[in-house]
Amino acid sequence: MTIEELRVRIDDLDRQLVELLSERARAAQMIGHLKAATSLPVYEPNREKIIYANVRATNKGPLPDIELTHIYERIIDVMRALQRNELASERHARETGAASAEPGPATGIGPETEKKP
Amino acid sequence: MTIEELRVRIDDLDRQLVELLSERARAAQMIGHLKAATSLPVYEPNREKIIYANVRATNKGPLPDIELTHIYERIIDVMRALQRNELASERHARETGAASAEPGPATGIGPETEKKP
Repeated sequence: MTIEELRVRIDDLDRQLVELLSERARAAQMIGHLKAATSLPVYEPNREKIIYANVRATNKGPLPDIELTHIYERIIDVMRALQRNELASERHARETGAASAEPGPATGIGPETEKKP
Repeated sequence: MTIEELRVRIDDLDRQLVELLSERARAAQMIGHLKAATSLPVYEPNREKIIYANVRATNKGPLPDIELTHIYERIIDVMRALQRNELASERHARETGAASAEPGPATGIGPETEKKP
């Protein structure tokens, strides 16, 4: 295989990766929605341990576990931010909907969870 | 869908993500191998621009482009390290094979590109 052919393959893998990451983000958003309804916290260290264990168990190389973990730390950071956004947006909607005297969420995070339609 | 069902779905998506990342890493390693043979540099800013453009063009949300870019910055960092490793390992093999008086690669990176078989 030439460098050019390998790059075509990588671009194709990247498109698949973006689709999987988007699907994972939608699931994280739905969890954020359910957490908003049940007052569960966004940060759940035990759940994150399970995620990392699952990732390491699936890994057959060539990336060392530590490098894959580095990638996953970033993925989880981003998903957590999305979930916080979802929660803030839900709370804001509830408070506004109930015409409550409470102030909006103090997080400074707006309701713009989605950038694209 | 309950939180538990969504988590089962996420664990499944993570396994698919690890497989795609591993396949991407194998392709990056092969490119590293070809670069070693042709003395091409590991860091190619124009190629990286194409990767980011491809990622943004594929993105249909819910992650904002900027968050997806954050994840990709980490992916590319890790792949670049893997490619540097591949290059250092190839150069080391060439130098050792040629019984040259040249010292080994000054990168401090060993030939352990693969942690797992």
